[in-house]
Amino acid sequence: MSHSKKYFTFMLVVLLVLTFGNLALADNALVFQSDFGLKDGAVSAMKGVAYGVDDDLDIYDVTHKITPFDIWEGAYRLNQTADYWPEGTVFVSVVDPGVGTDRESIVLKSKNGQYFVTPDNGTVTLIADNMGIEDVRIIDESKHRLEGSEASHTFHGRDVYAYTGAKLASGEITFEEVGPKLEKDIVKLDYQRATRDNNIVKGTIPILDIQYGNVWTNIPKKMFDKLNPEYGDMFKVEIYNKDELVYEEEVPFVSSFGDVEKGEPLLYLNSLLNVSIALNWDNFAETYNVDSGPNWKFVAKKIEN
Amino acid sequence: MSHSKKYFTFMLVVLLVLTFGNLALADNALVFQSDFGLKDGAVSAMKGVAYGVDDDLDIYDVTHKITPFDIWEGAYRLNQTADYWPEGTVFVSVVDPGVGTDRESIVLKSKNGQYFVTPDNGTVTLIADNMGIEDVRIIDESKHRLEGSEASHTFHGRDVYAYTGAKLASGEITFEEVGPKLEKDIVKLDYQRATRDNNIVKGTIPILDIQYGNVWTNIPKKMFDKLNPEYGDMFKVEIYNKDELVYEEEVPFVSSFGDVEKGEPLLYLNSLLNVSIALNWDNFAETYNVDSGPNWKFVAKKIEN
Amino acid sequence: MSHSKKYFTFMLVVLLVLTFGNLALADNALVFQSDFGLKDGAVSAMKGVAYGVDDDLDIYDVTHKITPFDIWEGAYRLNQTADYWPEGTVFVSVVDPGVGTDRESIVLKSKNGQYFVTPDNGTVTLIADNMGIEDVRIIDESKHRLEGSEASHTFHGRDVYAYTGAKLASGEITFEEVGPKLEKDIVKLDYQRATRDNNIVKGTIPILDIQYGNVWTNIPKKMFDKLNPEYGDMFKVEIYNKDELVYEEEVPFVSSFGDVEKGEPLLYLNSLLNVSIALNWDNFAETYNVDSGPNWKFVAKKIEN
Repeated sequence: MSHSKKYFTFMLVVLLVLTFGNLALADNALVFQSDFGLKDGAVSAMKGVAYGVDDDLDIYDVTHKITPFDIWEGAYRLNQTADYWPEGTVFVSVVDPGVGTDRESIVLKSKNGQYFVTPDNGTVTLIADNMGIEDVRIIDESKHRLEGSEASHTFHGRDVYAYTGAKLASGEITFEEVGPKLEKDIVKLDYQRATRDNNIVKGTIPILDIQYGNVWTNIPKKMFDKLNPEYGDMFKVEIYNKDELVYEEEVPFVSSFGDVEKGEPLLYLNSLLNVSIALNWDNFAETYNVDSGPNWKFVAKKIEN
Repeated sequence: MSHSKKYFTFMLVVLLVLTFGNLALADNALVFQSDFGLKDGAVSAMKGVAYGVDDDLDIYDVTHKITPFDIWEGAYRLNQTADYWPEGTVFVSVVDPGVGTDRESIVLKSKNGQYFVTPDNGTVTLIADNMGIEDVRIIDESKHRLEGSEASHTFHGRDVYAYTGAKLASGEITFEEVGPKLEKDIVKLDYQRATRDNNIVKGTIPILDIQYGNVWTNIPKKMFDKLNPEYGDMFKVEIYNKDELVYEEEVPFVSSFGDVEKGEPLLYLNSLLNVSIALNWDNFAETYNVDSGPNWKFVAKKIEN
Repeated sequence: MSHSKKYFTFMLVVLLVLTFGNLALADNALVFQSDFGLKDGAVSAMKGVAYGVDDDLDIYDVTHKITPFDIWEGAYRLNQTADYWPEGTVFVSVVDPGVGTDRESIVLKSKNGQYFVTPDNGTVTLIADNMGIEDVRIIDESKHRLEGSEASHTFHGRDVYAYTGAKLASGEITFEEVGPKLEKDIVKLDYQRATRDNNIVKGTIPILDIQYGNVWTNIPKKMFDKLNPEYGDMFKVEIYNKDELVYEEEVPFVSSFGDVEKGEPLLYLNSLLNVSIALNWDNFAETYNVDSGPNWKFVAKKIEN
């Protein structure tokens, strides 16, 4: 190779590295969730900290309207949405009533390669059960705490979680550099699972589809399928608050809302493929005073012709 | 040209293509609207799907607080905001009470080169009337449905609209590749238009400026201008709910809120250049129990000196 | 240098300039705040205008849920969050009850190099006091007004502030090109400052930590430190609404919420390092009917052992 050819080839390599080095370090999405609400500046402070770490980050939200202190709701919302974000996405979830106690701050890596930055208080219960845990690290606050925030003990979302999540999403640190392995099990919330007995499925109401008042159960399609349901089949549905019967009706299993008249009830598989009940163009939960939580039981029995 | 000159020129062209190919495929904004609210993970699931299509997309929102099932409100909000986004912007609007019925899923291209991805249920009524329709395509769900979402029939916002909108905004598909032409008219909502009779203009209250309680009418500046209004002119305003007179007052036409004392009424042109009435620093709609909808009539008569 | 070497060097320089010119013009974040709420299209119209100026802008929010017309709340939220955004960030704050009056439209540059685009109505009172003013410019609306918006007099947030903020954040104009220097003082809101008398600190309640009902005061850590507080020390706290005693209790000063039992009161330094009072896992403000504003006084006296 001539001298000048060597010179140009070197320059081209330099250019290529400069140009595509950026792409090689491509950011992953950073997705926030909290119970902070949107009325004050708390969410903005977290995003500002993340943006200060790397102004190329793609920053999004799950929701910030988790009911204050409701760790279960946080766990449910993560589980509802994470599947729809790509591998590598970093979720920062801050429902943290125990801020300032000795609960750990962790990053969970799921089997499908997503990251969950959160206090270890049960928020990742459903992610762990449904996606599987690859590894869990304790955040080393001596390295991953916003400079100058040492006197603040009540806003780890800003000072620790947003900061660590941004470093991880931007590639500034690797997952292993978050801190040491968690040497015990993560904290998990207790919750009931659905059961089947012949042509009867029983479950709970883990959450409401709050905007429309549809009632979601924890009975998965897979279990429900064992009843060989076909669209149009009738089911006897009972809803109980503890032992009190709150709703009892024969309801058709259909594909979607428009398959029944306005105002009529329908049994369907919701967007998470769990058995659900609704009124077409109306609010089931409000109409029948149904709420969610471990006290609420849902029973559906297939009516044989 | 020498051999080495050819070699380097080739390399430079490769580099240029790699570097600027990205820019040539520049994304257009993807702007979401829905009646989902912000309390759960539905909006995040849609954005995650879009981000999975192309992590360089610029994703924004109109609002997600459309009153559930209120297609008219969705139509109004699109019309209120689209003008302020650039040509090429892709709007995804999901107010979809008929999900799962045989309503079509469409993409409308407006005369000014914006795209509206939506169920064909009237949501684009005002866009069609005010911007004009260039072309309408039916979404071919056999090609443009999120992989693995086939068992879900209740969340086309996530499985079809966000996915198709993202492909279109990113340039992964062209408008023509969305699917076949819609061979009939789009569904349109009925709505009343304003009228003028000499020095009297009559209209309806299509929507409230809800945050402040200002009352917006459908009477456009162009029609109002035929009354030769000058700032300071007095108008007799009447507001009716069906036939019941709810408000009657002589009100000055002014340029802006600060032209009258705090608490005083004013007639003005709102940010969409429609005739509107308000109380300075106060809430007109609450004070006088005025709401919006086809039953509400607004009459303004110019008082000649 | 040979002819061909010159040719390639020239081409390489062209490439380098094209590639890295972009980076040299790196955008600063554009962060919006308003009292518009999120129910309609107003925020989206502002962002659309900004995106139309430069589709590479990084657009974020403080909050849009400022109480309508509440300039003080707007001032507080800016002050709460600005510190967590980088130098160069452009804030656009639109709490503008005086739109259309002769109040000026300004851009304030703070000593730490951030920009605040806002009506001159007191919104930057706390930023000016805490960060210091570097310079203030009046927006020259003859140059910095959205084309075609001249007939609109009620939405400067969209037509002037978003547009000017976007030009500034994108580097399309310099700060000096915003317009002439403001030759008078900016408008400032009156507010009370905290005082100390021996082992007693007195302040007001400038705002509630609204999502959780924690009560924040304006007493800074620096002043409180003069009482030599140690974690576990007891303080007699009194809260007054004008002269009426609303709350009186001995409360421990602790590091964080988890240091007291659920439901118990605690005195702590909040995320802004101001003295605050709360109930662990409960809502102090609701429990004791405490609100914020200049009528509310907070007194804490250290109890000597």
